[in-house]
Amino acid sequence: MDERTALAELADRLPDAGDDCAVVDGQVVTTDMLHERTDFPDGTSRYTAGWRAVGASLSDVAAMGADATAAVAAYGAPSFDPDELGAFVDGARDVCESVGGEYVGGDLDNHDEFTVATTALGTASDPILRSGASPGEAVCVTGTLGRSALALALFDRGDTEGANALFRFQPRVRAGVALRSHASAMMDSSDGLARSLHQLAEASDCGFAVEEPLPIDERVGAVAESDEERLELGAFFGEDFELVCTMPEAAVSAAREATPCPLHRIGTVTERGVTLDGEALPDRGYSH
Amino acid sequence: MDERTALAELADRLPDAGDDCAVVDGQVVTTDMLHERTDFPDGTSRYTAGWRAVGASLSDVAAMGADATAAVAAYGAPSFDPDELGAFVDGARDVCESVGGEYVGGDLDNHDEFTVATTALGTASDPILRSGASPGEAVCVTGTLGRSALALALFDRGDTEGANALFRFQPRVRAGVALRSHASAMMDSSDGLARSLHQLAEASDCGFAVEEPLPIDERVGAVAESDEERLELGAFFGEDFELVCTMPEAAVSAAREATPCPLHRIGTVTERGVTLDGEALPDRGYSH
Repeated sequence: MDERTALAELADRLPDAGDDCAVVDGQVVTTDMLHERTDFPDGTSRYTAGWRAVGASLSDVAAMGADATAAVAAYGAPSFDPDELGAFVDGARDVCESVGGEYVGGDLDNHDEFTVATTALGTASDPILRSGASPGEAVCVTGTLGRSALALALFDRGDTEGANALFRFQPRVRAGVALRSHASAMMDSSDGLARSLHQLAEASDCGFAVEEPLPIDERVGAVAESDEERLELGAFFGEDFELVCTMPEAAVSAAREATPCPLHRIGTVTERGVTLDGEALPDRGYSH
Repeated sequence: MDERTALAELADRLPDAGDDCAVVDGQVVTTDMLHERTDFPDGTSRYTAGWRAVGASLSDVAAMGADATAAVAAYGAPSFDPDELGAFVDGARDVCESVGGEYVGGDLDNHDEFTVATTALGTASDPILRSGASPGEAVCVTGTLGRSALALALFDRGDTEGANALFRFQPRVRAGVALRSHASAMMDSSDGLARSLHQLAEASDCGFAVEEPLPIDERVGAVAESDEERLELGAFFGEDFELVCTMPEAAVSAAREATPCPLHRIGTVTERGVTLDGEALPDRGYSH
């Protein structure tokens, strides 16, 4: 049974789960587990690992339109090299500080494979859920897509420095806060744009008609060998940690002005079906 | 480098860490990673694993004298059997409900070894730290000691049901809340009574003179082959998740009355040194 099916099976037991964060008394909380073999390619520095692991949880806080307050991490490794551990903590602390939150420590655990579990907390009196989109609205995405796919290509080519820099994405917490007075539904694109649109469509009982050009990072074109591969890396690969959101068409201009990063209108909310340039957009992407 | 040395190395980077929980804006937060080989012996049911993993974090919340609000868990396993996963979630939910908190879900991750990372949250306007003990006060412990050591002996003997029942300890959240108007310092005994006393002594710059009899579970006598082994299992083995706290002698009687579980006075706070019946009590115990 894969993770999506297992999560669906748990829905009865956990009625409040299923969004980017759980909401408890005006507070949002989210947790993620990452491990070396699938999440940290050869060449990932421990500073980058700390930044990225904590950043992944902060991205879920951002997706609720919440202010980030704090994060913790449990760090499992075969040994505790002080330089590696210190670098990890520096990365974790710096990514928290970049969004106005505080990294407050965690746990150490002897573990065969380098494994990190992070938890982030935030506050939002009126969090943005995945379920609020309505037909006729616009659908938008922050920043650019395909950077994690690009980073993996750079790791493969031995450009470790460039790859690490791309891997240290900026969690969109400030953008999420700016969007909360405009957005009707929101989530992060950690599973890829295509799958995120399908998840939003299911939660909001709607569809999406998306049109190219998508805001795919221009450097992705340099590593992709065809337009198809460019789309694969930009829309399906995932792990971009951008925000995908919906809002009334009339709100797009003000939202774009308020958001401290690019905000691209990529299409409209429809009654049903998810399409790209009129063709069905498959529901596939990154499975964590 | 072991976990304790590594944590000491991190002290400069994380000045707010080092207690059972971190404190952020009147909220307490703690995280723990547990894994199959060291934390869940053969025979541990997934219901017990969910209870115990989330319970370990709730015990840290208890140690701050905080009310428990919520917990999350990241669940890593080679496959997601719906019965196992459901049982885990039931255990996690039930232990939260037993202390008035809410289990709000988490993350699933494909992982070779069954690994769980839990985070618990609580609120306390004036949390009890490890650093408040003063010479002349009494030192007390809740409940009984040695139950996890006893559980391991039962797992070894094939009494899986008895062992699982002992493994599902009651996190002392309600006791911690009752103690917060009395206790000057508090922590949980997850590393064993001996090591906990040394940690309290270091944080409070004091010592302890402890006297037998210690409140060691009477069933421990049945599996221990000598008085020495009984003390080993009761005071050093750890993983008991009881509260160790200090308070003025005059407060002990009222604290005992307010606490919804047994509270045993085991000795007094001194200027320095940790002793049991006048002999030095070694600083050793469970290393997580």
